[in-house]
Amino acid sequence: MPGTAPEPTEFDLIGRIRRRAGGRDDVVLGIGDDAAVLRVPPGRQLVVAMDTLNAGVHFPADTAPADIGWKALAVNLSDLAAMAAEPAWCTLSLSLPGRDAAWLDGFLDGFLALAAEHRVALVGGDTTRGLLSVCVTVHGFVEPGRALRRDAAQVGDDVWVSGTLGDAAAGLRVVLATDDADGAIGGTAGERRWLRDRLDRPSPRVALGRMLAGRVNAAIDISDGLLADLDHVCEASGVGMQVWMRALPVSPALSAAVGEKARRQFQLGGGDDYELGFTAPPGARLDIERCAVASGVSLSRIGQVGVGERVRVFDRDIDGAGEGGECHVGRRGYVHFDPGASA
Amino acid sequence: MPGTAPEPTEFDLIGRIRRRAGGRDDVVLGIGDDAAVLRVPPGRQLVVAMDTLNAGVHFPADTAPADIGWKALAVNLSDLAAMAAEPAWCTLSLSLPGRDAAWLDGFLDGFLALAAEHRVALVGGDTTRGLLSVCVTVHGFVEPGRALRRDAAQVGDDVWVSGTLGDAAAGLRVVLATDDADGAIGGTAGERRWLRDRLDRPSPRVALGRMLAGRVNAAIDISDGLLADLDHVCEASGVGMQVWMRALPVSPALSAAVGEKARRQFQLGGGDDYELGFTAPPGARLDIERCAVASGVSLSRIGQVGVGERVRVFDRDIDGAGEGGECHVGRRGYVHFDPGASA
Repeated sequence: MPGTAPEPTEFDLIGRIRRRAGGRDDVVLGIGDDAAVLRVPPGRQLVVAMDTLNAGVHFPADTAPADIGWKALAVNLSDLAAMAAEPAWCTLSLSLPGRDAAWLDGFLDGFLALAAEHRVALVGGDTTRGLLSVCVTVHGFVEPGRALRRDAAQVGDDVWVSGTLGDAAAGLRVVLATDDADGAIGGTAGERRWLRDRLDRPSPRVALGRMLAGRVNAAIDISDGLLADLDHVCEASGVGMQVWMRALPVSPALSAAVGEKARRQFQLGGGDDYELGFTAPPGARLDIERCAVASGVSLSRIGQVGVGERVRVFDRDIDGAGEGGECHVGRRGYVHFDPGASA
Repeated sequence: MPGTAPEPTEFDLIGRIRRRAGGRDDVVLGIGDDAAVLRVPPGRQLVVAMDTLNAGVHFPADTAPADIGWKALAVNLSDLAAMAAEPAWCTLSLSLPGRDAAWLDGFLDGFLALAAEHRVALVGGDTTRGLLSVCVTVHGFVEPGRALRRDAAQVGDDVWVSGTLGDAAAGLRVVLATDDADGAIGGTAGERRWLRDRLDRPSPRVALGRMLAGRVNAAIDISDGLLADLDHVCEASGVGMQVWMRALPVSPALSAAVGEKARRQFQLGGGDDYELGFTAPPGARLDIERCAVASGVSLSRIGQVGVGERVRVFDRDIDGAGEGGECHVGRRGYVHFDPGASA
């Protein structure tokens, strides 16, 4: 806390937030009353997601306030992206150990920068005293019947993923400065910073999600790790999946920073990627590649939906070519690494 | 934690919540995907409120899980009530120190009992690891232009409040077992239990709020204490208020449990009442009294809106009759008790 300035009241903090919160034409009444009043466009359904980040659990305690703000909104927008929803409004509940106006301003810098990028208005919430914790609810719109769901994967679908995988997990190791042999993070300072940025400043794939609506069958955002999240799709859809390890997208920074074993672990099991995983019929491949170009986000075809009930990973190239056998098995919300099979 | 049962995973806990969450016809997709998909009825605006309760800050750490669940939803429904909104859906973000299925079941008992009473469907959220903290977002509907706001009080309006004031503040003293001379809680065991119930199980005035729409000018829920909340109305509306101390509603239990000085402090400054405060033209008195009968909630006329910018409390009967002078002054979010004037 800065020297002698008196601690602001809760109402001071809310006033600070209110002055900076952006507006939208469909906000009838924003911050400053008991609740917000909002207009949902005719012919649209409402899409609502809510996620909390706790200090020391979801982000390292020393993360910059602007990065915490960015990420708290990003993880929620990522959920809207996975539903193919167009973001509109958010509410924010902020628990703070003390009332530090400078910290709050930094937090809002990150939070509101991402909100502005996606034209999201902050319309309400509260500030309370407690351990640092950020809870956000986001609201968006979707055309009836166009929301992307987890339970619609079809046998024969391709499995796709956006961006690159495992960067955030490596970024976390940069922060924690793990130095055991397998987990050591190499690469240049610039590469390590890029990995940490992938952890702190994920890019929710909102535009991509909108484009995929009507083109793909099932979608999910990759927040718990690729295997765990694809497993959710398998469970909800009543299908199994085969995934080709050598087809998983990898960033140059991740390749430079860690060895193959750690890289594979991060790609399959590392959380916080906030990419989109989805399944689509093979006939949609060309169309999906056009979405990659239009959205500016790379898309990788990484496997196939089949009968069964879980995700099986094979050490092979795209379309299952090559010699490698089954190397990892994902089970209901639990990632099992077979010690004998890891490279 | 019970003896040897393995700790459930986050997905187990979510499954437990999902199995018990109620439904509604307007829920297209509830718990179990990246986000909920919902239908807002045509011709209605969406009303959204969000409030967090932290252990040790908003409720005593040893509060029964069912009471925590009830209250976490109640304080949010109270915000909808103050807007005259009809509740529809909620999302829940639960931070828990451990994954205790028995605790969660108790919590859901209270949360879902109140949800069922108001036909609210739990449609999403998350569970995370952290200090015990409950964040809830509620959604409701209101006819365009009918939402009750803080900024619409008119000079000449009566000031009204529902129910009785100060009970929850006394209930908190029961829990804390404060035994300084002025704060000691007397009364029978039944009265003390009733006061604690007012703290733990507030009744959001939803039906009353719906009835008041179109009949009153401004409304707010009394959560921070009467003076602080009426002060919010004064600030938002650009008016002042005179409040008659002897007109403030008091419960028999509060009268029996504390002396006059503590009673007055609790009525004016005690938080957690979750009653509705509102202003209405004198011509609406009969109509408002009919709302009291129809909703089963007592309503008290406690003062008048005038020019000025703050709440002034006079030690007088209803309509300002009697001899008593100004006894308390409320200022912007801060309750000032004049030591010389307190009875």
